[in-house]
Amino acid sequence: MALALMLGRRGQGQCWPNPAVGCVIVKDGRIVGRGWTAPGGRPHAEPLALAQAGAAAKGATAYVTLEPCAHHGQTPPCAEALINAGVAHVVAPFADNDPRVSGKGFEMLRAAGVEVTTGVLSKQAAQELDGFLRRNEQGRPRVTLKLASSFDGRIATATGHSQWITGAQARRAVHGLRAKHDAVMIGAGTARADDPMLTVRDMGVSRQPVRVVVSRRLDLPMMSKLAMTAKEVPLWLCHGPHADAALSETWEGIGATLVPCQLTGGHLDMASVLQALGDLGLTRVFCEGGGALAASLLSAGLVDELVGFTAGLAIGAEGLPAIGAMGIARLEEAARFTLIETRDVGGDVMHRWERR
Amino acid sequence: MALALMLGRRGQGQCWPNPAVGCVIVKDGRIVGRGWTAPGGRPHAEPLALAQAGAAAKGATAYVTLEPCAHHGQTPPCAEALINAGVAHVVAPFADNDPRVSGKGFEMLRAAGVEVTTGVLSKQAAQELDGFLRRNEQGRPRVTLKLASSFDGRIATATGHSQWITGAQARRAVHGLRAKHDAVMIGAGTARADDPMLTVRDMGVSRQPVRVVVSRRLDLPMMSKLAMTAKEVPLWLCHGPHADAALSETWEGIGATLVPCQLTGGHLDMASVLQALGDLGLTRVFCEGGGALAASLLSAGLVDELVGFTAGLAIGAEGLPAIGAMGIARLEEAARFTLIETRDVGGDVMHRWERR
Repeated sequence: MALALMLGRRGQGQCWPNPAVGCVIVKDGRIVGRGWTAPGGRPHAEPLALAQAGAAAKGATAYVTLEPCAHHGQTPPCAEALINAGVAHVVAPFADNDPRVSGKGFEMLRAAGVEVTTGVLSKQAAQELDGFLRRNEQGRPRVTLKLASSFDGRIATATGHSQWITGAQARRAVHGLRAKHDAVMIGAGTARADDPMLTVRDMGVSRQPVRVVVSRRLDLPMMSKLAMTAKEVPLWLCHGPHADAALSETWEGIGATLVPCQLTGGHLDMASVLQALGDLGLTRVFCEGGGALAASLLSAGLVDELVGFTAGLAIGAEGLPAIGAMGIARLEEAARFTLIETRDVGGDVMHRWERR
Repeated sequence: MALALMLGRRGQGQCWPNPAVGCVIVKDGRIVGRGWTAPGGRPHAEPLALAQAGAAAKGATAYVTLEPCAHHGQTPPCAEALINAGVAHVVAPFADNDPRVSGKGFEMLRAAGVEVTTGVLSKQAAQELDGFLRRNEQGRPRVTLKLASSFDGRIATATGHSQWITGAQARRAVHGLRAKHDAVMIGAGTARADDPMLTVRDMGVSRQPVRVVVSRRLDLPMMSKLAMTAKEVPLWLCHGPHADAALSETWEGIGATLVPCQLTGGHLDMASVLQALGDLGLTRVFCEGGGALAASLLSAGLVDELVGFTAGLAIGAEGLPAIGAMGIARLEEAARFTLIETRDVGGDVMHRWERR
């Protein structure tokens, strides 16, 4: 199952809105088939592993990181495929919370005489599949917030100089993280200040993450890398209800997708933004700031994972803060995150935290 | 030698102005004596190890982390003690840079027919003894700057709430670090805001670090823990030339030591502060902030080691910054530090950096 989870991770960021599932088929103590959700979400992991196993699947055990699907979507149900191949035993962490499946896959298997075991590595699987499960349950994707800052939490000097605070290896690690997410999201301020591409480079990914910019008024520069590449790599603009109609048309004309969202007290409502992104199929969103967007997401309790890259230099109090104003008076008001891991990435400190 | 260095570390913070030296005596592949500079700086490591070895010292090899002293100070020279005990071979990383020794110890040993080997683990020894060597060379102690902050580099909320950002284990680790330094130093703002004791608690130390407060005008609260304990644990106040005479007298009256320092552009000159502390014998100073003092030390290039404790919460941009204004416009102007280590300390990230 640990191997199946590892295989499943290969599909992360590549197969939304489908879950990144892994499947390992074992016969007489030997691995005869391995599969993971293909780029684009199809084929699923199980038919790929079954195809590899061929006749050896008969009487074998299939380890799958999520309940095999039971419904006829664009592919025939995986539960049926496992039955037809003669698999004797299916091991999975838990039932799919997609209402079209939710136990029906296990039922179908059991009805056909296949032994079903659940509860295996379910905590780890729940973590890996969190984006998919969360979208089914809450309608919104999982959010990872990344901040690359100086020792004292600054992302640029007062004059806006920010290239580069962290080293080449940390920046490459960020590209690796982008590749594992369905979308990369930034605020309008960062789009204006940094003119970023937000693509995954030099990683050989088959599907670039969607680039999401949160801009209430759509007042973003047209002569930007994002605008100029909107036809090649998806660019979604989350905006408020009063965005200028001419601007909206222009952005659609150059290939951007407009995502209308609601306001709360004059600001874009972050829950509404994420709900809209969930509606469009995103399961894993990687937010790269800036400070205002980071503060909004944190204040709304919408950050599931924090990833920090801390460099060994101090910029001082005039520098641009990594996280904007949050209106916190007492420490109890601040959400606490639990440390998952910390390590040296090319001379910078990488630290990952999960919401408690 | 690695063991001798480890033993030497035991004396750190306890034996200033003397170096924290370790000594291991080996005879026929067996350790027959171990010693390290005693609290207060005397006896030195060598006579302690020799006393333990007794007659076994004859013909033995002594591993010492610094050249044995050659001058008659308050103790007879250690080189003489090694000769008298019949030690055959002395292994040391390098010569002492104290002008009273600087090679004379090795000469004395060689003249008496003792074999001398140098250059063993000298890089590590230079690191361990940096405070002592630096004071001999530059007149100032080694400075370690510690910052315990939120994920976004804040040390308190806008209203000053700061207890506790980091967890109990990180705070205990800070007490451990205090114990390894000759003095703990803070700025006047922190003294006023936090009313700290700055002592080492629950660690069984034999000598408390000196408590140093940097306050240009000596306008510190008299009804503070620092003031009330000035007779029990040394309290040194680094002040400018124009501090109020009545205030000076009062502070001296309650047991504080006044340390006059120079100004630069209206502010206390940090090089002058550290020079004065070096003149008073300090070799290792542990600075715990606040933001203004941290910024002054960093701007002046006087921080040798940075120790960060980062907690998993965000306070936001209104929070008190860990490092004050530094006037940095471009990243090239900021001093870079090299990461030595990062690890999980009770759920907080501990990270240590050395000046490049």
